[in-house]
Parts: sequence; structure tokens; C-alpha cells
Amino acid sequence: MIGAQALIRTLVDAGVTVCFTNPGTSEMHFVAALDEVPEMRAVLALFEGVATGAADGYARMSDAPGATLLHLGPGLGNGLANLHNARRAKVPIVNIVGDHATYHTQYDAPLQSDIETVARNVSPWVRTSRRTEDIAADAVDAIVAAHGPPGQVATLILPADVSWGDGAEPLRVPEYDVSLPTATEDTVEAVAEALKRDGATALLLGGSALRERGLLAAGRIAAVTGARLLGVVFPTRLQRGAGLPAVERIPYFPDAARARLEELEQLVLVDAKPPASFFAYPGKRSYLAPDGCEVRELASSETDAIASLEALVEALGAAAATPQLARAFRPQPPTGTLDAEKVARAIGSVLPERAIVCEEAITSALPLPANTAGAPPHDWLTLTGGAIGEGLPLAVGAAVARPDRPVFALQADGSGLYTIQSLWTMAREQLDVTVVIFNNRSYRILKVELERVGAQPAGPKADAQFDLGHPEINFVDLAAGFGVPGRRAETGEEMTEALQDAAAEPGPHLIDAVIG
Amino acid sequence: MIGAQALIRTLVDAGVTVCFTNPGTSEMHFVAALDEVPEMRAVLALFEGVATGAADGYARMSDAPGATLLHLGPGLGNGLANLHNARRAKVPIVNIVGDHATYHTQYDAPLQSDIETVARNVSPWVRTSRRTEDIAADAVDAIVAAHGPPGQVATLILPADVSWGDGAEPLRVPEYDVSLPTATEDTVEAVAEALKRDGATALLLGGSALRERGLLAAGRIAAVTGARLLGVVFPTRLQRGAGLPAVERIPYFPDAARARLEELEQLVLVDAKPPASFFAYPGKRSYLAPDGCEVRELASSETDAIASLEALVEALGAAAATPQLARAFRPQPPTGTLDAEKVARAIGSVLPERAIVCEEAITSALPLPANTAGAPPHDWLTLTGGAIGEGLPLAVGAAVARPDRPVFALQADGSGLYTIQSLWTMAREQLDVTVVIFNNRSYRILKVELERVGAQPAGPKADAQFDLGHPEINFVDLAAGFGVPGRRAETGEEMTEALQDAAAEPGPHLIDAVIG
Repeated sequence: MIGAQALIRTLVDAGVTVCFTNPGTSEMHFVAALDEVPEMRAVLALFEGVATGAADGYARMSDAPGATLLHLGPGLGNGLANLHNARRAKVPIVNIVGDHATYHTQYDAPLQSDIETVARNVSPWVRTSRRTEDIAADAVDAIVAAHGPPGQVATLILPADVSWGDGAEPLRVPEYDVSLPTATEDTVEAVAEALKRDGATALLLGGSALRERGLLAAGRIAAVTGARLLGVVFPTRLQRGAGLPAVERIPYFPDAARARLEELEQLVLVDAKPPASFFAYPGKRSYLAPDGCEVRELASSETDAIASLEALVEALGAAAATPQLARAFRPQPPTGTLDAEKVARAIGSVLPERAIVCEEAITSALPLPANTAGAPPHDWLTLTGGAIGEGLPLAVGAAVARPDRPVFALQADGSGLYTIQSLWTMAREQLDVTVVIFNNRSYRILKVELERVGAQPAGPKADAQFDLGHPEINFVDLAAGFGVPGRRAETGEEMTEALQDAAAEPGPHLIDAVIG
Repeated sequence: MIGAQALIRTLVDAGVTVCFTNPGTSEMHFVAALDEVPEMRAVLALFEGVATGAADGYARMSDAPGATLLHLGPGLGNGLANLHNARRAKVPIVNIVGDHATYHTQYDAPLQSDIETVARNVSPWVRTSRRTEDIAADAVDAIVAAHGPPGQVATLILPADVSWGDGAEPLRVPEYDVSLPTATEDTVEAVAEALKRDGATALLLGGSALRERGLLAAGRIAAVTGARLLGVVFPTRLQRGAGLPAVERIPYFPDAARARLEELEQLVLVDAKPPASFFAYPGKRSYLAPDGCEVRELASSETDAIASLEALVEALGAAAATPQLARAFRPQPPTGTLDAEKVARAIGSVLPERAIVCEEAITSALPLPANTAGAPPHDWLTLTGGAIGEGLPLAVGAAVARPDRPVFALQADGSGLYTIQSLWTMAREQLDVTVVIFNNRSYRILKVELERVGAQPAGPKADAQFDLGHPEINFVDLAAGFGVPGRRAETGEEMTEALQDAAAEPGPHLIDAVIG
């Protein structure tokens, strides 16, 4: 069979059964081969950033690699920001980038560029497949690399002639050990001893520690030691809601983060880095833990965080402890003129069980955690890598991965516009996504940041750089253009009703929540 | 003064007075400094690909460097595809990418990545400014590098603390020689001798050879030698229309290109590469000139193409020759159900004098050259680097550069969606752009390419990858969402009227031309 077919067959046999695509001429044999391998689902995106962010969302919710199909260097470039996010989220992605035929590169055709070098920016594993006979073995290596653990972006570059050449055979991924080591006994013992001491202590949880089993173990540790449970600023996937141990995520803004950490004498890292601010600010330290706070690592991203937490539970004799669990709670539905807090209340009042929340609400995100903490159990996905424009693509991927679960994309207006084309894929695939646009008609975060970096007062030209109100962007029109039914909400009542209506009807909906 | 202010002042003093921006926190001091330097105009884009493509369009129409302001590695990634196009177009761009403060990188914050390596993909000149005192000198080097000639993308990476630090002073770019050498006498003589011989000969013109002065010289050469005038597939900027020598652009599809070249015995390159196909196709040669066709180079991109052509005119004694000029001609306005040919006729029937056409019409472009060849003189900008999604940004930049001239963005539907956010900047800046969407509800080019690469017959899954009709995309709604008045045209009469109405009213307009 031809290379493309063997590649797709190898992917499918390894459980990689969805590919988010934006192909071009050099990928036409891959596209044609889709019909030869019925198990592969190809989800078309209008823009590569949608495809790569969707692959990330798919991987976060399926724990299997998401795959992409991109067109040459510029297609990879368009997908790079969300691959950056996937890299930071440590999710498995098999990133397939078509290239010119090997013999065509001598002509330096207009679309030729150095794909490998760009790919390395986001992808520790990069390989150009050189021979049709090797494509299946290269695919196996890419799949294994993507899986990790920890998961990573693995980029397989596929020259057109390798793809169309004949003589390939699919391969099966051999069984291999995907387990990570547990923290050593010494480490567990040292952390246990430290936790038994007096003094304000917290566990800082990231990665798989924020999944249910990790949270329950951490909750037991907290119950017997009094340690607080903190979460990283932007988790890859946080399980939360009524009946689960709650974590306080470290705030994005460093002053708030410092205030939250200031009493701490000990901090135990569980698949998390020592806390540092997102950005530097003149005259302020980037490092956020207070002086004298002792920082210990229980588990790195190369350690099994859940097993390490459970070993710590044993070491502390906490197996029978009862973790403190979030109690069921719904805020009152809001009334009157809308603001970000009321949108959060409306969401908290209706959020259904097993919802998947893809949150990129930026400054509007502040009231969300409190208002949804007591909602039925749900997953919360965030902008782990900080490159805005991933919220809507994440929702696409999450909805493809879990068609049985309602997806909510809680999206700031400015950042939603980077990959607004996501709406079309939601409509095309009839994904059950409720998109809420927190529409404050500005890059509000940058107004705040301008003050924070001490560059105020902003003059009119600087102010104009944060202004999305001239002209105003009508998200209902944009949604209609992409085939998604939308409506505007200007009051709490309208917001709650719009959420209820969206939940009652299958397929995507957009609510343009006009705030402050 | 602070680094950012010295940087902007240095840019402005060197004639770089427009910056296409999509800033983030690390660029806030640059943004604040905009108010300190009134001569710098900052044009906000909702997406970096709009900013980089606009900088390209600005540079093509102003012959001065366009500048960008991008946010960290992911912002550069989002702008990479159109910087690739700018690289291929050989236009000057000062590409400013903010970075974390130098002392912040130790924390490997979420948005940190290797900016320099990605930048090198499109930018031969890359430098990270390390000290506030050096920023102005670094800016001077960037401006000089961008200018070339030939023009190039020069990327200046600006750490936040270098930007906000005090103690910088602006610098003036020293006078320097920006001329390129003329082809040597030997080369000119050899080409002249070759052109005097019998046999089918053509000049293949690219770069500045496609500007009026180059065309007139080439026209004189053609008049005395009988050589045909060919143009590269996708010129950076082609001046054409009634009263100018016409060139036949080499067709995109290699079979058509081969047919156009098949009789040739000699081909003279004038800032153009030997003709090769865009993509490779199984069993077909990528090289397009016929066997035995002798290829000579009069001028490379490192040579002054116009001066070399004029030297060739002298060598041939052709100074007094009368070049053949395109005669004034307007097609009849079309009637009845619209198709791509009728859209082209409508455009040819109304195209005003000194129009700037930004053309990314892909398969719909075929009837455009013939129908506009006799229109009043105009500029024609194309997708030089082949990375789709540049048409609308080019129009933004061209309109900013030349507010005195009407701009037409002739845009395929699929490729227009990559950077559809351009519409908002057109509305915000009230740019006089008429956007025509050739809406065939498909990636038509890929259907053709699938057949051409021999991967047919396409099954239903492959076919679905080319389908933009499920759901249909409503460009009038998208335009409304971004603040641009739009209308749909389904007949020739509606198309012509819509073009006339758009021309009569200032500001941007979109016409959704529904074709076959």
C-alpha cells in the first residue's frame, strides 16, 4: 500500500483515530487514503490553529494522542501557538506536517521552508520520513514519543513522495512500559516528616495530581496534616465540583498570588514548578513564594504524581482519613444588567453534571471558580501555555473526544478572535458546545497590565491598542456567518435563559454576554 | 529616555512610521511610548497574521519598511505564514517581537520559548537586544538589514526590561549605499548576442522588472528582438493596464505552464528563478522549461534589474524602439447567473485608475488577467510565497500605505478565512478596500490538485475535506460582525452594481460573490 495509507492504518491501530486537518496539495494522498481506513475520523478546520488546539483538547479529554494534518511550514506556523500550549500542557499529539516531495526541494519552490527547525520549538521529537518503506516505523516512533509519559508533541514530517510511494506496510506499536516511577521512599519519607512539623504548609498540585484520584489522595494528606491544597495557575485538566476535594488555584496576578502564599513556611511540589509570575514587572520579584518558605518536590513531571501522593498517604497513615470535599452549591441565578460576576453566577446556576469547561475568560475569569465550586463534578481545562486563542479550539477537541458530555467554552472576546474559525467546525460536526463570550469590548487584561508594569498613565494611542469597541464586534453575526446560532445577553435573566436554551438543544450555541 | 521610546523614535526618524500591532504584556512599554512619538502610527490587528501580512502590503506599496509589534514566540508563530510570504516577496519588514525580561527567563514561564530560532525561518537578520543602551543601535541595524536591497524581514527581539529600562537615546540611520550592481558588461553583451539569434526567446521578469520602468525597458527589448515577456507566477508587485507593456504570467498549474513554455529555445531570467512547478506531481518533472531551452540570467535578486534591462536596451540599440503597450479595453459588464469569469468581467468593467489589486483568488483567478488587461494602469499584488491567508492583510497594508488609491482585495473564500479578522482593521481604520469573495463554497484548488496528483477518485471522506458548504459560510454576516458593510451578489448585474456602489462610498465594503 502507499505510504499515506500505511501511516493512517498504523495510527488507527495504535488508537489514534481522530485527525484534525487543514491539508494542502502536498497532503492530498493522505486525504485520499482517509477513505481506505474507515476508522480514522478527519475533522476539518478552517485554520491550523483550530486544528492544533483541537488536538490538544482531544488529548486532554481522551488521554489518547490527538493528531493533526498540516500543510508545510506555513501551516505549521499557523498551528504553532496552540502547539506551544500543548507542549506546556504535556499532552500527547502526533503532529503530521506534509512537505514537498524529496526531489522537489532543489527548486526552492515558494512554499519551501525549514519545517524541522520550527517544529523543534514545540516538539521534542521531530523526524522527516525519508522513505515510503520507513513511514510506518516512523509513525510508531512518533506515537510512542507522543505518549511519553509525560505526553509531548511529536512531529512527523511527511514528504509528498514518501506519502504517495508504494511498498509500505502498517505496523503495530509494540507493548512498552508507559508507567512513570513513583517518588523514592526517601523523598516520600522526607516530605512526610516535613508535613508533620508545625508551620503553614501547602501542596502545589499540577498534572495528573489534579485528577480525581490525585485529589482524593491530596485531600487525605490535607486532612491529617492541615496542609492547604493549591493548584497551578493554569491546569491542563482539573477535576472539580461537589464531592471532590477543592484546590485553590494560584492567581494569575502576582500580587494576588503573593498574598495567597505569604504565610507559607513549606511548599510541596507535586508535578508543579516553584511558583513564579507569568510576566516580569519592574521592581518586583518574579518568584512568588515568600522568603524562607522551604520548597520540596514530591513529584516532577517525570514521576507518577498520583502514585507518589498515594505513597505519601501511606507514609502519613492517612489512608482512612476523610478528605474535605466541596459541598453541593448553586448560586442564585442573576438578575439585572450583566457583568462578569453575574455571568459566572448564571453558569454556576446551570452547569450540568460531567460538563467540560474550556476556560479562556482572562480578566472575566475571576468570579468563575467560586460560582462553580459547588456545581456537579466537571472538568476544567485552561490556557496552560498562556498563548491566547486556544479556548474555542480546546472546546472543539474536547467535544469530539467526549460526545456524551456537554462542553462549555468560556471565552474572552479578544482572545476568542484569534481562532474564531473554530465556530465553523463546531457547526459542521454539530458539537455540543455552549460558547459564552465575555464581551467587554477590550483587551481588558492589557489595560491592567499597562498599569502593573508602571507604564501609566496611558495616552490615547496606547488606550486605542486595548480598544475592541471601534467598531464593536458582533459575535452573534460572526456565529451566524460560521453556522452557529447565537444570541446576545445583556441581563442576568437573559444570560440564564440563554444557557438553559443552549443546554436543551443539541449542537453548538453562542451567547454574546455583554459585560462592563 | 526608556528603550521603547528610543526604539520608536529611531524607527520614525528612519521613515518607518507605521507599525502593525498585536501586543501583549511584554510589549506594554512599547505601547505606552507610542504617545511619546506622535509620528508613529500604530494599526491594531486582532490576529498576528493580519499584522504581518499588512506590513508586507504596506512595504510593497510604500517601498519603505513595514513594521510589526508581536507578542513573544506564539505571537511570532501566528504571524509566521505571512512573514514567509514577505520573505519570498523580498520586501523590507522590521519585525519587532517582545520577550520576557532577561532576568525572568530562568523561571521558564509558560509563554517562554525559543523566539530566535523560529524567527530565523523567515528572517535572515535576527537579534535580541540585550541592553537598553544598545536598543537604538540594534534598531538601526535592523532597519538597514530590512532595507537591503533586496528587502528582507529583520527581526528585533525586545526583552521587556530592555524596553522599560532608562538611558537610551535614539539614533539616526547613517547614509549608506542602497544601490545594487548592474549586470556586468559581459553578461549584458552575452544576453544581447543571444537575443539577436534566431529562435523563440522570452524574458522572464520578476521583482522590480515588473515595475513600470522595468517593463518599458523590457518592452523595448521585445520590440527589437521579438522576445516574449513572461512574468513570474506570483509577482510581488506588477504594474499593468492600458498604456503599459503587458507580460504573460507563467500559469500556476504546471501543464499550462509547460504549454506556455514549450516552444522556447532561450529564456532570459531577470530577477526570476528558472521556472519550476509549485508542487511536485507523481511522474511529472518539476522543472518547467523544455529540454534544450537555454537559460541565461541577466539579473539576480542581488542585481539592479531595471538598470540591467536598460543596459541591455543600450546594447541592443533599442532605446528608440516603441514597446508594444496594452490598449485600453473594458469588458462588457456581465449579466445573468454569476460565475468566476463574470466576476472578473465586472471587475474589469469598473476597475478605477491607480487601483491596487491584492489578488488571492486561487482557482477563480484564471479569468482575471484577460478581463483587466486593458483597465487603466493599476498595481497587482499576489501571493508571492504561496502561504494562503495573505490577501486580506495585504489589502490592509496597501490601503494604509496609499490612502489616495482604491484597493481591491480579490479573495477566494477558503483562503480568506485564515485571516478574516482583517475586516475589522479595515473597518476600524476606514480603509478604502473593496473585498470581493469568490465564494465557491469549497477548497476548489484541492479538488483539482487531488486529481492532478493521481490520488483520484476521491471517496466521500476525501471529498468532505474540500467542502466549505456544510455549513455554508455567510461572508456578509462575518463582515457585519467585524463592522464592514457587505452584500451578496448572485448575478452579473448585482455584481457590477455592488462594485460601483462600493467605489462610490468611502471605507471598506465586502461583496460575497456566489459562484459555481
